[in-house]
Amino acid sequence: MGGVSGVSGVSTEPADADPRRDEVAARVLLARLGEPGDVRLGERVRREGATATVAQILRGDAAVGGLSTYQARLPADTDVVAVVAADVERLQRVDAVLVVPGTSDWPTQLDDLGDAAPLLLSVRGAAHLRMSALRAVSIVGARASTQYGDLVAGELAAGLAERGWTVVSGGAFGIDAAAHRGAIAAGGSSVAVLAGGVDVAYPRAHEALFARLLDEGLLIAESPPGSAPHRSRFLVRNRVIAALTRGTVVVEAALRSGSLSTARHARDLDRVVMGVPGPVTSTMSAGVHRELREGALLVSSVAEVIEAVAGIGVDLAPRASGPTRPRDDLDATSVRVLDAVPARRAADTAAVSRTAGVDVATTIATLGLLELAGFVTRDPDGWRLAAQGRT
Amino acid sequence: MGGVSGVSGVSTEPADADPRRDEVAARVLLARLGEPGDVRLGERVRREGATATVAQILRGDAAVGGLSTYQARLPADTDVVAVVAADVERLQRVDAVLVVPGTSDWPTQLDDLGDAAPLLLSVRGAAHLRMSALRAVSIVGARASTQYGDLVAGELAAGLAERGWTVVSGGAFGIDAAAHRGAIAAGGSSVAVLAGGVDVAYPRAHEALFARLLDEGLLIAESPPGSAPHRSRFLVRNRVIAALTRGTVVVEAALRSGSLSTARHARDLDRVVMGVPGPVTSTMSAGVHRELREGALLVSSVAEVIEAVAGIGVDLAPRASGPTRPRDDLDATSVRVLDAVPARRAADTAAVSRTAGVDVATTIATLGLLELAGFVTRDPDGWRLAAQGRT
Repeated sequence: MGGVSGVSGVSTEPADADPRRDEVAARVLLARLGEPGDVRLGERVRREGATATVAQILRGDAAVGGLSTYQARLPADTDVVAVVAADVERLQRVDAVLVVPGTSDWPTQLDDLGDAAPLLLSVRGAAHLRMSALRAVSIVGARASTQYGDLVAGELAAGLAERGWTVVSGGAFGIDAAAHRGAIAAGGSSVAVLAGGVDVAYPRAHEALFARLLDEGLLIAESPPGSAPHRSRFLVRNRVIAALTRGTVVVEAALRSGSLSTARHARDLDRVVMGVPGPVTSTMSAGVHRELREGALLVSSVAEVIEAVAGIGVDLAPRASGPTRPRDDLDATSVRVLDAVPARRAADTAAVSRTAGVDVATTIATLGLLELAGFVTRDPDGWRLAAQGRT
Repeated sequence: MGGVSGVSGVSTEPADADPRRDEVAARVLLARLGEPGDVRLGERVRREGATATVAQILRGDAAVGGLSTYQARLPADTDVVAVVAADVERLQRVDAVLVVPGTSDWPTQLDDLGDAAPLLLSVRGAAHLRMSALRAVSIVGARASTQYGDLVAGELAAGLAERGWTVVSGGAFGIDAAAHRGAIAAGGSSVAVLAGGVDVAYPRAHEALFARLLDEGLLIAESPPGSAPHRSRFLVRNRVIAALTRGTVVVEAALRSGSLSTARHARDLDRVVMGVPGPVTSTMSAGVHRELREGALLVSSVAEVIEAVAGIGVDLAPRASGPTRPRDDLDATSVRVLDAVPARRAADTAAVSRTAGVDVATTIATLGLLELAGFVTRDPDGWRLAAQGRT
């Protein structure tokens, strides 16, 4: 891959290669030298470019913050060209493509992460990342989820998929897996953001699920191929899940669940933070309930999720309403009087009394009662139906 | 009872009796002529007094709005003295006392209802209504509650009772009964606001429960003795439950549950409206979830309820926190570096590196990671623990 020769362009020789490929190759190398979300490295790359940053590290430029960290991962005698070539080859073996910022395949939502944005993404699968990210919602939650959590995560994911939304999550047991399975089952596309290398199936038990995601969706990762998913990387990875989507739904989470960090990143990024409530007797819902107490939006249906993440006024969810009407709580006379109050205009007491076929005195008393109960309102023109009184 | 002779004071004879007793007797009569929450009647009584209002009705004063309604319930030849005497006697038979506004036994919270406030209350039981209402919370919900709802209602009520709070609810099956039982079981006092007469055990199956409330708490009603609990009266009764307490907790409610009207009254009265979430798959929680989406406070523990209704800064509930700490998600090095960041002051990188016994380069990289993950923050003085990093 040209990017490999491109790296030689950051050596002392004149840069003869395509600078874009140099840039990609340099990012491949930097992804290996730094940790995901390294803001100091991100800032330097933004200011000086990846190629120049690599050159500075190679020549031991003291101006590079944390230089020793990067050098520690790149012994002096290392052939950087070979390092890049090896990674590129590993990615090619699993049909992964490299996507870097500023290209037509890059999901620009990730730019909201600023200097903490991934240097590049390794992408595998049938779907188109940038297109998929246009209407995407992340569904995250506990690994040790309950049947209830798995059920709800799967149904939300399926409902989103049916309506053309992409589901984004991690690759873990529990809610992550339930969400992917729900989206795929509904014929939608699902994206798993992995904490390790895009070629590393973790957990192993999810090899089959990941294989399905390759056919129906995507596997993406910012860590170099072969990287093990350290625990700390899961927390850092969560910022990508949050940034990639318009909103994050936490389905089940214990009070200390790592999935809550996705919600926090979503909030920091001005994404919509949603939570699915559960029994207060379930420790797996305690973390979600705390989020809901602290400002997250309670969602109990796909429609409510879509209303929250869709554009203003788009896909508004119907206000939840039951099969019966409040007037079912009223006695026969009250219902007759209530039904006699016109829907759109006001009517005086005599008119309501006539329409209802109820004597004026009873009509007056009943209207007063209906007013107190919030079914009707009184204004200078007479009686009107209050919101609650309508159908 | 003197109040009886007092009513003669509203006849043509000179008022020779104690005007306070006249007033009580007049309210006993008006409670029978009007429906609970009749704002027109309440306004007139406020402006002119109960005795004068009775006199106006007796003499057929056309200035009385809805006069015919009241007269319909009081045929011309009726002996009002006998009517009052009969009600007073029925109340005495069940050891009920009459409590009217402006007296030392009146719970002044009810004055917030303005002209919709009860004209008087019939009170039975061992507790003192006004004292009980000082620290009271209402727990309401569905009649057709689930085991989950009954369990939570009972535990919340017990927890409130243990902390010296009075529980207020209706007398219905389901959540109402579960709340009363929980409060009583914890040795606390519970108040049932009945929609019918205070001497009417409705539902019949709750006779034993009501008997226990007489020993441990109170039964109160605004309707005259013997009154049947019409459906419409339940909705109107709910305003008393809401007004009597600092906050209303809805435990389970279908979308059209009448218990939601208690929440609406509580909101209108600037009381705290709280809701206990449940599975989104349960129709019995759908009404609560809608309330939570529309501004009610999610509560999942007694402490959270008390924090919401207690005075500012009083009885603050501990922020829900689990047995493990977020740092449990970090690798060994990160934990060492995080532990090396002082709790109350800032420390520069070198100091953290020394304390942690981790080389500077790794320390720098790790701190950057911890910052991204929200454990530490950086300021001109160096590194500090972020909220999430503490304990």
